[in-house]
Amino acid sequence: MHDTHLHHEDHLESSALLKDIVIGMSDGLTVPFALAAGLSGAVDNTSVIVLAGIAEIAAGSIAMGLGGFLAGKTEQDHYNSELKREYWEVDHLPQKEREEVKDFFAGLGLSEDVQEKATTELIKDKDRWVEFMMKHELNLDKPDPKRARKSAFNIGVSYIVGGLVPLSPYFFVDEATEALKFSVVITLACLFIFGFFKSKITGVNPWSGGFKVMLIGAVAAATAFGIARLIEGK
Amino acid sequence: MHDTHLHHEDHLESSALLKDIVIGMSDGLTVPFALAAGLSGAVDNTSVIVLAGIAEIAAGSIAMGLGGFLAGKTEQDHYNSELKREYWEVDHLPQKEREEVKDFFAGLGLSEDVQEKATTELIKDKDRWVEFMMKHELNLDKPDPKRARKSAFNIGVSYIVGGLVPLSPYFFVDEATEALKFSVVITLACLFIFGFFKSKITGVNPWSGGFKVMLIGAVAAATAFGIARLIEGK
Repeated sequence: MHDTHLHHEDHLESSALLKDIVIGMSDGLTVPFALAAGLSGAVDNTSVIVLAGIAEIAAGSIAMGLGGFLAGKTEQDHYNSELKREYWEVDHLPQKEREEVKDFFAGLGLSEDVQEKATTELIKDKDRWVEFMMKHELNLDKPDPKRARKSAFNIGVSYIVGGLVPLSPYFFVDEATEALKFSVVITLACLFIFGFFKSKITGVNPWSGGFKVMLIGAVAAATAFGIARLIEGK
Repeated sequence: MHDTHLHHEDHLESSALLKDIVIGMSDGLTVPFALAAGLSGAVDNTSVIVLAGIAEIAAGSIAMGLGGFLAGKTEQDHYNSELKREYWEVDHLPQKEREEVKDFFAGLGLSEDVQEKATTELIKDKDRWVEFMMKHELNLDKPDPKRARKSAFNIGVSYIVGGLVPLSPYFFVDEATEALKFSVVITLACLFIFGFFKSKITGVNPWSGGFKVMLIGAVAAATAFGIARLIEGK
Protein backbone atom coordinates (compact mmCIF):
# COMPACT_ATOMS: atom_id res chain seq x y z
CA MET A 1 0.00 0.00 0.00
CA HIS A 2 1.41 3.38 -0.87
CA ASP A 3 1.22 6.77 0.73
CA THR A 4 -2.33 7.83 1.52
CA HIS A 5 -1.74 11.51 0.91
CA LEU A 6 -0.64 10.88 -2.64
CA HIS A 7 -3.53 8.49 -3.06
CA HIS A 8 -6.04 11.13 -2.11
CA GLU A 9 -4.53 13.90 -4.24
CA ASP A 10 -4.15 11.64 -7.27
CA HIS A 11 -7.75 10.74 -6.85
CA LEU A 12 -8.96 14.33 -6.95
CA GLU A 13 -6.61 15.78 -9.56
CA SER A 14 -6.79 13.12 -12.20
CA SER A 15 -10.46 12.31 -11.86
CA ALA A 16 -11.95 15.32 -13.69
CA LEU A 17 -9.72 15.23 -16.80
CA LEU A 18 -9.67 11.45 -16.91
CA LYS A 19 -13.42 11.25 -16.63
CA ASP A 20 -13.70 13.56 -19.65
CA ILE A 21 -11.20 11.59 -21.71
CA VAL A 22 -12.87 8.33 -20.77
CA ILE A 23 -16.31 9.67 -21.67
CA GLY A 24 -15.17 11.08 -25.00
CA MET A 25 -12.79 8.41 -26.13
CA SER A 26 -14.77 5.33 -25.20
CA ASP A 27 -17.73 6.58 -27.22
CA GLY A 28 -15.48 7.93 -29.96
CA LEU A 29 -13.76 4.61 -30.44
CA THR A 30 -16.98 2.63 -30.23
CA VAL A 31 -19.75 4.39 -32.16
CA PRO A 32 -17.91 5.43 -35.38
CA PHE A 33 -16.33 1.95 -35.33
CA ALA A 34 -19.71 0.25 -35.16
CA LEU A 35 -21.25 2.60 -37.72
CA ALA A 36 -18.44 1.92 -40.20
CA ALA A 37 -18.69 -1.81 -39.52
CA GLY A 38 -22.45 -1.71 -40.05
CA LEU A 39 -22.13 0.12 -43.35
CA SER A 40 -19.35 -2.28 -44.43
CA GLY A 41 -21.94 -5.04 -44.15
CA ALA A 42 -24.21 -3.30 -46.63
CA VAL A 43 -22.26 -1.09 -49.05
CA ASP A 44 -19.15 -1.90 -51.07
CA ASN A 45 -17.87 1.63 -51.58
CA THR A 46 -15.75 3.08 -48.77
CA SER A 47 -16.42 6.70 -49.79
CA VAL A 48 -19.95 6.56 -48.32
CA ILE A 49 -18.52 5.04 -45.15
CA VAL A 50 -15.87 7.77 -44.84
CA LEU A 51 -18.56 10.38 -45.37
CA ALA A 52 -20.92 8.86 -42.80
CA GLY A 53 -18.05 8.32 -40.39
CA ILE A 54 -16.86 11.91 -40.54
CA ALA A 55 -20.42 13.23 -40.24
CA GLU A 56 -20.86 11.01 -37.20
CA ILE A 57 -17.60 12.16 -35.60
CA ALA A 58 -18.58 15.81 -36.16
CA ALA A 59 -22.07 15.19 -34.78
CA GLY A 60 -20.90 13.11 -31.86
CA SER A 61 -18.09 15.41 -30.78
CA ILE A 62 -20.38 18.45 -30.87
CA ALA A 63 -23.23 16.66 -29.12
CA MET A 64 -20.93 15.37 -26.40
CA GLY A 65 -18.73 18.46 -26.13
CA LEU A 66 -21.48 21.06 -26.25
CA GLY A 67 -23.66 18.69 -24.25
CA GLY A 68 -20.96 18.49 -21.58
CA PHE A 69 -20.60 22.25 -21.57
CA LEU A 70 -24.31 22.90 -21.13
CA ALA A 71 -24.62 20.10 -18.58
CA GLY A 72 -21.96 21.91 -16.56
CA LYS A 73 -23.87 25.18 -16.84
CA THR A 74 -27.08 23.42 -15.82
CA GLU A 75 -25.33 21.92 -12.81
CA GLN A 76 -24.38 25.44 -11.74
CA ASP A 77 -27.94 26.71 -12.21
CA HIS A 78 -29.26 23.74 -10.28
CA TYR A 79 -26.79 24.35 -7.47
CA ASN A 80 -27.76 28.02 -7.26
CA SER A 81 -31.48 27.30 -7.23
CA GLU A 82 -31.07 24.69 -4.46
CA LEU A 83 -28.86 27.10 -2.53
CA LYS A 84 -31.59 29.74 -2.60
CA ARG A 85 -34.09 27.17 -1.40
CA GLU A 86 -31.88 26.08 1.50
CA TYR A 87 -31.45 29.70 2.63
CA TRP A 88 -35.21 30.05 2.50
CA GLU A 89 -35.67 26.88 4.56
CA VAL A 90 -33.09 27.90 7.17
CA ASP A 91 -34.89 31.25 7.53
CA HIS A 92 -38.46 29.93 7.57
CA LEU A 93 -38.22 26.39 8.94
CA PRO A 94 -35.20 26.66 11.27
CA GLN A 95 -36.50 24.01 13.71
CA LYS A 96 -36.88 21.44 10.94
CA GLU A 97 -33.50 22.22 9.43
CA ARG A 98 -31.92 22.05 12.89
CA GLU A 99 -33.42 18.56 13.33
CA GLU A 100 -31.84 17.51 10.02
CA VAL A 101 -28.39 18.61 11.19
CA LYS A 102 -28.87 16.69 14.43
CA ASP A 103 -30.05 13.62 12.47
CA PHE A 104 -26.81 13.74 10.53
CA PHE A 105 -24.75 13.60 13.70
CA ALA A 106 -27.02 10.88 15.09
CA GLY A 107 -26.31 8.88 11.92
CA LEU A 108 -22.60 9.06 12.72
CA GLY A 109 -23.31 7.26 16.00
CA LEU A 110 -22.61 10.20 18.30
CA SER A 111 -24.19 10.39 21.75
CA GLU A 112 -27.28 12.57 22.34
CA ASP A 113 -25.14 15.02 24.28
CA VAL A 114 -22.48 15.47 21.55
CA GLN A 115 -25.18 15.59 18.81
CA GLU A 116 -26.82 18.48 20.62
CA LYS A 117 -23.57 20.37 21.20
CA ALA A 118 -22.29 19.90 17.66
CA THR A 119 -25.62 21.02 16.19
CA THR A 120 -25.75 24.12 18.34
CA GLU A 121 -22.23 25.08 17.33
CA LEU A 122 -22.67 24.36 13.64
CA ILE A 123 -25.85 26.39 13.14
CA LYS A 124 -24.38 29.51 14.76
CA ASP A 125 -23.11 30.60 11.35
CA LYS A 126 -25.95 30.65 8.80
CA ASP A 127 -23.71 30.39 5.73
CA ARG A 128 -21.94 27.38 7.17
CA TRP A 129 -25.29 25.85 8.08
CA VAL A 130 -26.56 26.20 4.50
CA GLU A 131 -23.29 24.93 3.06
CA PHE A 132 -23.60 21.92 5.34
CA MET A 133 -27.16 21.23 4.18
CA MET A 134 -26.12 21.50 0.53
CA LYS A 135 -23.30 19.05 0.96
CA HIS A 136 -24.68 16.55 3.45
CA GLU A 137 -28.43 16.66 2.89
CA LEU A 138 -28.55 17.20 -0.88
CA ASN A 139 -25.12 15.79 -1.73
CA LEU A 140 -24.31 18.80 -3.91
CA ASP A 141 -20.78 20.16 -4.26
CA LYS A 142 -20.18 23.71 -5.40
CA PRO A 143 -19.45 23.36 -9.14
CA ASP A 144 -16.29 24.92 -10.57
CA PRO A 145 -17.34 27.53 -13.20
CA LYS A 146 -14.29 26.83 -15.38
CA ARG A 147 -14.91 23.11 -15.40
CA ALA A 148 -17.81 23.25 -17.87
CA ARG A 149 -15.69 24.85 -20.60
CA LYS A 150 -12.64 22.67 -20.05
CA SER A 151 -14.81 19.58 -19.85
CA ALA A 152 -16.52 20.37 -23.16
CA PHE A 153 -13.21 20.76 -24.92
CA ASN A 154 -11.68 17.59 -23.45
CA ILE A 155 -14.68 15.43 -24.26
CA GLY A 156 -15.03 16.78 -27.79
CA VAL A 157 -11.35 16.34 -28.68
CA SER A 158 -11.25 12.87 -27.13
CA TYR A 159 -14.24 11.87 -29.23
CA ILE A 160 -12.57 13.07 -32.45
CA VAL A 161 -9.28 11.35 -31.64
CA GLY A 162 -11.10 8.16 -30.74
CA GLY A 163 -13.34 8.29 -33.82
CA LEU A 164 -10.51 8.70 -36.33
CA VAL A 165 -8.95 5.40 -35.23
CA PRO A 166 -11.64 3.02 -36.57
CA LEU A 167 -12.23 5.21 -39.61
CA SER A 168 -8.61 5.51 -40.75
CA PRO A 169 -8.42 2.23 -42.75
CA TYR A 170 -11.38 3.35 -44.87
CA PHE A 171 -9.32 6.31 -46.08
CA PHE A 172 -6.70 4.00 -47.58
CA VAL A 173 -8.52 0.83 -48.57
CA ASP A 174 -11.14 0.92 -51.34
CA GLU A 175 -13.05 -2.22 -50.59
CA ALA A 176 -15.29 -1.92 -47.54
CA THR A 177 -15.00 -5.45 -46.12
CA GLU A 178 -11.22 -5.29 -46.57
CA ALA A 179 -11.01 -1.98 -44.70
CA LEU A 180 -13.28 -3.42 -42.01
CA LYS A 181 -10.72 -6.12 -41.21
CA PHE A 182 -8.02 -3.52 -40.50
CA SER A 183 -10.52 -1.37 -38.60
CA VAL A 184 -11.54 -4.29 -36.37
CA VAL A 185 -7.93 -5.15 -35.51
CA ILE A 186 -6.69 -1.65 -34.70
CA THR A 187 -9.90 -0.53 -32.94
CA LEU A 188 -10.21 -3.59 -30.71
CA ALA A 189 -6.50 -3.23 -29.85
CA CYS A 190 -7.00 0.45 -29.00
CA LEU A 191 -10.14 -0.29 -26.99
CA PHE A 192 -8.26 -2.91 -25.00
CA ILE A 193 -5.28 -0.64 -24.32
CA PHE A 194 -7.61 2.23 -23.45
CA GLY A 195 -9.67 0.05 -21.09
CA PHE A 196 -6.51 -1.37 -19.55
CA PHE A 197 -5.08 2.01 -18.54
CA LYS A 198 -8.43 3.43 -17.56
CA SER A 199 -8.88 0.51 -15.16
CA LYS A 200 -5.33 0.75 -13.84
CA ILE A 201 -5.92 4.38 -12.91
CA THR A 202 -9.30 3.81 -11.27
CA GLY A 203 -7.76 0.95 -9.29
CA VAL A 204 -9.66 -2.01 -10.73
CA ASN A 205 -8.28 -5.09 -12.49
CA PRO A 206 -6.80 -3.77 -15.78
CA TRP A 207 -7.08 -7.04 -17.72
CA SER A 208 -10.78 -7.49 -17.09
CA GLY A 209 -11.27 -3.74 -17.57
CA GLY A 210 -9.57 -3.83 -20.97
CA PHE A 211 -11.57 -6.85 -21.96
CA LYS A 212 -14.88 -5.22 -20.96
CA VAL A 213 -14.23 -2.06 -23.00
CA MET A 214 -13.20 -4.16 -25.99
CA LEU A 215 -16.32 -6.28 -25.60
CA ILE A 216 -18.63 -3.23 -25.81
CA GLY A 217 -17.02 -2.19 -29.08
CA ALA A 218 -17.16 -5.70 -30.53
CA VAL A 219 -20.81 -6.23 -29.60
CA ALA A 220 -21.83 -2.82 -30.95
CA ALA A 221 -19.94 -3.35 -34.23
CA ALA A 222 -21.21 -6.90 -34.72
CA THR A 223 -24.80 -5.84 -34.06
CA ALA A 224 -24.60 -2.89 -36.44
CA PHE A 225 -23.03 -5.14 -39.08
CA GLY A 226 -25.76 -7.77 -38.63
CA ILE A 227 -28.62 -5.26 -38.73
CA ALA A 228 -27.25 -3.56 -41.85
CA ARG A 229 -26.92 -6.94 -43.58
CA LEU A 230 -30.51 -7.78 -42.66
CA ILE A 231 -31.82 -4.48 -44.03
CA GLU A 232 -29.93 -4.91 -47.27
CA GLY A 233 -31.05 -8.56 -47.47
CA LYS A 234 -27.52 -9.73 -48.08
CA MET B 1 -42.05 27.05 -1.85
CA HIS B 2 -43.44 23.59 -1.38
CA ASP B 3 -42.94 20.93 1.24
CA THR B 4 -39.28 20.14 1.85
CA HIS B 5 -39.88 16.48 2.53
CA LEU B 6 -41.43 16.02 -0.87
CA HIS B 7 -38.67 18.09 -2.40
CA HIS B 8 -36.00 15.83 -0.97
CA GLU B 9 -37.74 12.58 -1.88
CA ASP B 10 -38.53 13.78 -5.40
CA HIS B 11 -34.93 14.68 -5.73
CA LEU B 12 -33.69 11.22 -4.80
CA GLU B 13 -36.33 9.09 -6.50
CA SER B 14 -36.50 10.77 -9.83
CA SER B 15 -32.83 11.55 -10.23
CA ALA B 16 -31.52 8.10 -11.16
CA LEU B 17 -34.14 7.22 -13.80
CA LEU B 18 -34.29 10.76 -15.13
CA LYS B 19 -30.54 10.97 -15.43
CA ASP B 20 -30.60 7.79 -17.52
CA ILE B 21 -33.40 9.03 -19.78
CA VAL B 22 -31.69 12.38 -20.18
CA ILE B 23 -28.35 10.76 -21.04
CA GLY B 24 -29.87 8.35 -23.54
CA MET B 25 -32.45 10.56 -25.15
CA SER B 26 -30.43 13.73 -25.56
CA ASP B 27 -27.73 11.83 -27.43
CA GLY B 28 -30.30 9.69 -29.26
CA LEU B 29 -32.15 12.72 -30.57
CA THR B 30 -28.97 14.59 -31.45
CA VAL B 31 -26.43 12.23 -33.03
CA PRO B 32 -28.65 10.24 -35.46
CA PHE B 33 -30.29 13.56 -36.36
CA ALA B 34 -26.96 15.16 -37.21
CA LEU B 35 -25.72 12.07 -39.03
CA ALA B 36 -28.83 11.96 -41.21
CA ALA B 37 -28.58 15.70 -41.83
CA GLY B 38 -24.93 15.33 -42.79
CA LEU B 39 -25.64 12.53 -45.23
CA SER B 40 -28.58 14.49 -46.66
CA GLY B 41 -26.05 17.14 -47.63
CA ALA B 42 -24.09 14.64 -49.70
CA VAL B 43 -26.29 11.80 -50.97
CA ASP B 44 -29.66 11.96 -52.71
CA ASN B 45 -30.94 8.51 -51.86
CA THR B 46 -32.64 8.12 -48.48
CA SER B 47 -32.03 4.35 -48.32
CA VAL B 48 -28.34 4.86 -47.47
CA ILE B 49 -29.37 7.37 -44.81
CA VAL B 50 -31.87 4.98 -43.26
CA LEU B 51 -29.22 2.27 -43.26
CA ALA B 52 -26.58 4.49 -41.67
CA GLY B 53 -29.11 5.87 -39.20
CA ILE B 54 -30.23 2.44 -38.03
CA ALA B 55 -26.65 1.21 -37.79
CA GLU B 56 -25.86 4.30 -35.72
CA ILE B 57 -28.84 3.80 -33.41
CA ALA B 58 -27.85 0.16 -32.86
CA ALA B 59 -24.23 1.12 -32.23
CA GLY B 60 -25.05 4.08 -30.03
CA SER B 61 -27.65 2.32 -27.88
CA ILE B 62 -25.32 -0.63 -27.29
CA ALA B 63 -22.30 1.58 -26.62
CA MET B 64 -24.26 3.74 -24.19
CA GLY B 65 -26.31 0.96 -22.62
CA LEU B 66 -23.54 -1.61 -22.26
CA GLY B 67 -21.18 1.25 -21.44
CA GLY B 68 -23.52 2.37 -18.66
CA PHE B 69 -23.79 -1.19 -17.37
CA LEU B 70 -20.05 -1.74 -17.25
CA ALA B 71 -19.47 1.72 -15.80
CA GLY B 72 -21.81 0.72 -12.98
CA LYS B 73 -19.87 -2.52 -12.44
CA THR B 74 -16.59 -0.58 -12.46
CA GLU B 75 -17.98 1.83 -9.90
CA GLN B 76 -18.69 -1.14 -7.63
CA ASP B 77 -15.21 -2.56 -8.12
CA HIS B 78 -13.73 0.84 -7.44
CA TYR B 79 -15.80 1.20 -4.27
CA ASN B 80 -14.73 -2.21 -3.03
CA SER B 81 -11.05 -1.58 -3.70
CA GLU B 82 -11.18 1.77 -1.90
CA LEU B 83 -13.08 0.14 0.97
CA LYS B 84 -10.34 -2.43 1.41
CA ARG B 85 -7.75 0.34 1.40
CA GLU B 86 -9.61 2.35 4.04
CA TYR B 87 -9.83 -0.71 6.32
CA TRP B 88 -6.10 -1.16 5.85
CA GLU B 89 -5.45 2.50 6.71
CA VAL B 90 -7.66 2.42 9.80
CA ASP B 91 -5.76 -0.68 11.01
CA HIS B 92 -2.25 0.53 10.16
CA LEU B 93 -2.38 4.33 10.37
CA PRO B 94 -5.09 4.88 13.01
CA GLN B 95 -3.56 8.13 14.29
CA LYS B 96 -3.58 9.66 10.81
CA GLU B 97 -7.12 8.51 10.07
CA ARG B 98 -8.26 9.81 13.46
CA GLU B 99 -6.79 13.22 12.56
CA GLU B 100 -8.79 13.19 9.30
CA VAL B 101 -12.04 12.59 11.18
CA LYS B 102 -11.20 15.44 13.54
CA ASP B 103 -10.34 17.68 10.57
CA PHE B 104 -13.78 17.02 9.16
CA PHE B 105 -15.43 18.22 12.37
CA ALA B 106 -13.07 21.19 12.51
CA GLY B 107 -14.19 22.07 8.98
CA LEU B 108 -17.78 22.24 10.23
CA GLY B 109 -16.70 24.98 12.65
CA LEU B 110 -17.07 22.95 15.84
CA SER B 111 -15.06 23.82 18.95
CA GLU B 112 -11.91 21.87 19.84
CA ASP B 113 -13.74 20.21 22.70
CA VAL B 114 -16.70 18.99 20.59
CA GLN B 115 -14.35 17.94 17.75
CA GLU B 116 -12.45 15.73 20.18
CA LYS B 117 -15.57 14.21 21.73
CA ALA B 118 -17.26 13.57 18.40
CA THR B 119 -14.11 11.97 16.97
CA THR B 120 -13.65 9.71 19.98
CA GLU B 121 -17.27 8.55 19.77
CA LEU B 122 -17.28 8.04 16.01
CA ILE B 123 -14.14 5.90 15.82
CA LYS B 124 -15.33 3.50 18.52
CA ASP B 125 -16.98 1.39 15.83
CA LYS B 126 -14.47 0.46 13.11
CA ASP B 127 -17.09 -0.23 10.42
CA ARG B 128 -18.73 3.12 11.03
CA TRP B 129 -15.33 4.80 10.98
CA VAL B 130 -14.50 3.29 7.57
CA GLU B 131 -17.96 4.09 6.21
CA PHE B 132 -17.44 7.68 7.35
CA MET B 133 -14.05 7.92 5.59
CA MET B 134 -15.54 6.48 2.38
CA LYS B 135 -18.34 8.99 2.35
CA HIS B 136 -16.71 12.13 3.70
CA GLU B 137 -13.05 11.77 2.75
CA LEU B 138 -13.38 10.06 -0.63
CA ASN B 139 -16.92 11.18 -1.46
CA LEU B 140 -17.93 7.66 -2.43
CA ASP B 141 -21.45 6.34 -1.87
CA LYS B 142 -22.10 2.62 -1.73
CA PRO B 143 -23.31 1.77 -5.25
CA ASP B 144 -26.61 -0.06 -5.69
CA PRO B 145 -25.86 -3.40 -7.42
CA LYS B 146 -29.19 -3.38 -9.29
CA ARG B 147 -28.64 0.15 -10.60
CA ALA B 148 -26.09 -0.87 -13.24
CA ARG B 149 -28.51 -3.24 -14.99
CA LYS B 150 -31.49 -0.92 -14.79
CA SER B 151 -29.39 2.02 -15.89
CA ALA B 152 -28.08 0.16 -18.96
CA PHE B 153 -31.60 -0.72 -20.04
CA ASN B 154 -32.99 2.79 -19.49
CA ILE B 155 -30.17 4.50 -21.35
CA GLY B 156 -30.25 2.06 -24.27
CA VAL B 157 -34.02 2.27 -24.75
CA SER B 158 -34.00 6.06 -24.44
CA TYR B 159 -31.34 6.25 -27.12
CA ILE B 160 -33.38 4.09 -29.52
CA VAL B 161 -36.59 6.05 -28.89
CA GLY B 162 -34.73 9.33 -29.33
CA GLY B 163 -32.92 8.15 -32.46
CA LEU B 164 -36.03 6.99 -34.30
CA VAL B 165 -37.53 10.50 -34.17
CA PRO B 166 -35.08 12.26 -36.54
CA LEU B 167 -34.83 9.17 -38.75
CA SER B 168 -38.56 8.60 -39.24
CA PRO B 169 -39.09 11.05 -42.16
CA TYR B 170 -36.42 9.23 -44.17
CA PHE B 171 -38.55 6.08 -44.07
CA PHE B 172 -41.40 7.83 -45.87
CA VAL B 173 -39.80 10.46 -48.09
CA ASP B 174 -37.57 9.38 -51.00
CA GLU B 175 -35.65 12.57 -51.60
CA ALA B 176 -33.01 13.24 -48.93
CA THR B 177 -33.20 17.04 -48.73
CA GLU B 178 -37.01 16.84 -48.59
CA ALA B 179 -36.88 14.32 -45.72
CA LEU B 180 -34.31 16.51 -43.98
CA LYS B 181 -36.81 19.38 -43.77
CA PHE B 182 -39.32 17.23 -41.90
CA SER B 183 -36.54 15.77 -39.76
CA VAL B 184 -35.31 19.23 -38.75
CA VAL B 185 -38.78 20.40 -37.75
CA ILE B 186 -39.82 17.40 -35.68
CA THR B 187 -36.41 16.85 -34.09
CA LEU B 188 -35.86 20.46 -33.05
CA ALA B 189 -39.41 20.49 -31.65
CA CYS B 190 -38.73 17.28 -29.70
CA LEU B 191 -35.37 18.58 -28.48
CA PHE B 192 -37.04 21.74 -27.23
CA ILE B 193 -39.84 19.87 -25.45
CA PHE B 194 -37.35 17.42 -24.00
CA GLY B 195 -35.06 20.20 -22.80
CA PHE B 196 -38.02 22.11 -21.41
CA PHE B 197 -39.22 19.29 -19.18
CA LYS B 198 -35.74 18.20 -18.22
CA SER B 199 -35.04 21.73 -16.98
CA LYS B 200 -38.38 22.00 -15.22
CA ILE B 201 -37.61 18.85 -13.23
CA THR B 202 -34.07 19.86 -12.32
CA GLY B 203 -35.38 23.25 -11.21
CA VAL B 204 -33.75 25.54 -13.77
CA ASN B 205 -35.42 27.90 -16.25
CA PRO B 206 -37.29 25.62 -18.70
CA TRP B 207 -37.33 28.06 -21.62
CA SER B 208 -33.60 28.61 -21.68
CA GLY B 209 -33.09 24.89 -20.94
CA GLY B 210 -35.22 23.89 -23.93
CA PHE B 211 -33.43 26.37 -26.12
CA LYS B 212 -29.99 25.09 -25.09
CA VAL B 213 -30.82 21.46 -25.87
CA MET B 214 -32.29 22.48 -29.22
CA LEU B 215 -29.18 24.53 -29.96
CA ILE B 216 -26.86 21.54 -29.46
CA GLY B 217 -28.87 19.52 -31.97
CA ALA B 218 -29.01 22.35 -34.48
CA VAL B 219 -25.27 23.08 -34.28
CA ALA B 220 -24.37 19.39 -34.55
CA ALA B 221 -26.67 18.87 -37.55
CA ALA B 222 -25.56 22.03 -39.34
CA THR B 223 -21.89 21.15 -38.83
CA ALA B 224 -22.34 17.58 -40.08
CA PHE B 225 -24.28 18.88 -43.10
CA GLY B 226 -21.59 21.44 -43.89
CA ILE B 227 -18.71 18.99 -43.53
CA ALA B 228 -20.45 16.39 -45.71
CA ARG B 229 -21.06 19.02 -48.41
CA LEU B 230 -17.41 20.03 -48.29
CA ILE B 231 -16.24 16.45 -48.66
CA GLU B 232 -18.53 15.84 -51.60
CA GLY B 233 -17.55 19.20 -53.11
CA LYS B 234 -21.18 20.19 -53.61
